Amino acid sequence: MTLTHVQDLDTPALLVHRSRLEGNIAGMQRVADQAGVRLRPHIKTHKSKEIAKLQLAAGAKGLTCAKLSEAEAMSEVCDDLLVAYPIVGEAKFDRLEALSGRVRTRVSVESLEAAQALNSYLARSGRTQEALVKVESGLARTGVEAGELRGFLEQVLRLDRIRVVGLFTHEGIAYRCSGRTEIAGLLAGIAGRLAGMRETFRQVVGIEPEVSPGCSLTAKALTTSHGFTEIRPGTYVFADTFCVESEVFAEEECALAVLVRVIAVKGDGRVVVDGGSKTFAMDRHPRRGHGMVVGHPEIFFDRLSEEHGVLLTKTPERHRVGDLLEIIPAHVCPAVNLHDSLFLREGDEVLDEWRIDARGCVR
Amino acid sequence: MTLTHVQDLDTPALLVHRSRLEGNIAGMQRVADQAGVRLRPHIKTHKSKEIAKLQLAAGAKGLTCAKLSEAEAMSEVCDDLLVAYPIVGEAKFDRLEALSGRVRTRVSVESLEAAQALNSYLARSGRTQEALVKVESGLARTGVEAGELRGFLEQVLRLDRIRVVGLFTHEGIAYRCSGRTEIAGLLAGIAGRLAGMRETFRQVVGIEPEVSPGCSLTAKALTTSHGFTEIRPGTYVFADTFCVESEVFAEEECALAVLVRVIAVKGDGRVVVDGGSKTFAMDRHPRRGHGMVVGHPEIFFDRLSEEHGVLLTKTPERHRVGDLLEIIPAHVCPAVNLHDSLFLREGDEVLDEWRIDARGCVR
Repeated sequence: MTLTHVQDLDTPALLVHRSRLEGNIAGMQRVADQAGVRLRPHIKTHKSKEIAKLQLAAGAKGLTCAKLSEAEAMSEVCDDLLVAYPIVGEAKFDRLEALSGRVRTRVSVESLEAAQALNSYLARSGRTQEALVKVESGLARTGVEAGELRGFLEQVLRLDRIRVVGLFTHEGIAYRCSGRTEIAGLLAGIAGRLAGMRETFRQVVGIEPEVSPGCSLTAKALTTSHGFTEIRPGTYVFADTFCVESEVFAEEECALAVLVRVIAVKGDGRVVVDGGSKTFAMDRHPRRGHGMVVGHPEIFFDRLSEEHGVLLTKTPERHRVGDLLEIIPAHVCPAVNLHDSLFLREGDEVLDEWRIDARGCVR
Repeated sequence: MTLTHVQDLDTPALLVHRSRLEGNIAGMQRVADQAGVRLRPHIKTHKSKEIAKLQLAAGAKGLTCAKLSEAEAMSEVCDDLLVAYPIVGEAKFDRLEALSGRVRTRVSVESLEAAQALNSYLARSGRTQEALVKVESGLARTGVEAGELRGFLEQVLRLDRIRVVGLFTHEGIAYRCSGRTEIAGLLAGIAGRLAGMRETFRQVVGIEPEVSPGCSLTAKALTTSHGFTEIRPGTYVFADTFCVESEVFAEEECALAVLVRVIAVKGDGRVVVDGGSKTFAMDRHPRRGHGMVVGHPEIFFDRLSEEHGVLLTKTPERHRVGDLLEIIPAHVCPAVNLHDSLFLREGDEVLDEWRIDARGCVR
């Protein structure tokens, strides 16, 4: 059923290639299957129930969410959710309680204060909560350091309502690596550190833990020897400029582009399009700027204001006001989060419009 | 009617001080009245029908919108709308036609190609469209250069369905100025150039044009001598870190802050909060980072990932997991656009929750 054609869509609009999306979903499932790990995709990239359903149908075991509100949305299509984020504050405990009444939940523990507060709440509600311990692997945000893990686990074990079942990390620093070899090395180092932590976990907690890294770039380097039980990649469903520049994904694997229209062409090489930071998000790749213009490797996506995107080219005469361009965002996750829906395409046909169900779910 | 208290809100959440909001609205109206110009506020900052109604009730004559979708939302509360953005493409012509059937509209013309396409459409629909010519004042995006204005006006005059009624500009480069004196100088320079363009307009078009600059920083330097007929500031309703650092607004005039919760405190001085680039937008002030933490001038808002904000302090012992902080965003407009609603407060009381009606309206 063809709704319309890409050329007839109003701009700016998110376009998703159906076959590339399905290829990326199948490809990451193969990676997980071959390495003997469960795939629990992070939905922060697509925030779409339809895409989550495709991932689950392809073999994913459960989903990962960053915020409870994302998990609340995804609980309509999946009954096994990891909220890979600290749950802090009474309002969130109430919401976790309600969510856990509907689906299986796991949460992150990464500070003793938050774990103690959650434990006190659970003692009143009578429930027990499964949790994974977030361990730090280079991003310097939250997470338990390797040297603190034993002491942390010993403390958390005293909390009778929280049952720690494993370790997880987010090795997002892979996005700073230059190429596949460096990324494979990073993953090997993280796997080594996690192996040590796994042993500590066994000793302190007395069970075999889940061990779960979570990055689309390192996932492609995964082998059975890394010793993981689960992976949580997110960006792979669409891929983006950062993924291509890391040399882990090809431009032809990028499933999402933003359709924009040229609104000005200036003699100094400026081609201005009708999407800015409220369309693409402000994220910027050091070498490529705010995105890659499909079919125009000679264009540099230089600047964004709120509703203007400024491209630079040495051949402005190739462009005219009114032309359509497709641009792969620098970082696809925050870009998708700015939009209410995406258009599923195959070639120039628009097949469907899907809501971005968890857009704006930051609580 | 008290809904709840600020301390009981789930995080992250947008908080707006009612009295500061009303003060900013009244203050800018006074500026316009004293300079003898109409105030046509830009709604891109707040995207809220309730706030637009307050601006109109205080004396604003019409509203400014960036995109047709913003104008469609605001047409429910205002019957005089300027869409200060190029209208390009058949889908947008259809929407402009529908909107103009309900309210008075003015649009921007800034390229001959777009104006010709719109004129052809109007010839079929039988309508005439009022338009302002966008002139360039330093942002190097779109807009007609001073040296091109005469030729451009002569060409647009041949388009029988477009009636040009004035000139407008957006002197957003004021945000790069250091302090009030430099901003006043910038405004004087722009006023001088616009005076010359006004004379060109009179000669070519034969009428006295509207002359409209549009920036909250320069607006505060406005006098009757500048020769404008209308101003279009937007950010002033809330103000933000950029406004305070420009020395044009005081921190105490900032009406909006993001309520966040501390989710980690680390010995190296990191205080991590539960809002990241999907809460604040990635915009960054060169000296202040991603925002100002209210009551904590010693904190630097260093980094954002999607759901984590990393603050740096030399006194991490002052903070505990679970604490609430209020943060004034670096750039308020894209931050508001990430949220579905804002909470109106007075002191610690939450008075109301208002939808951000035009959130995500980028088409």
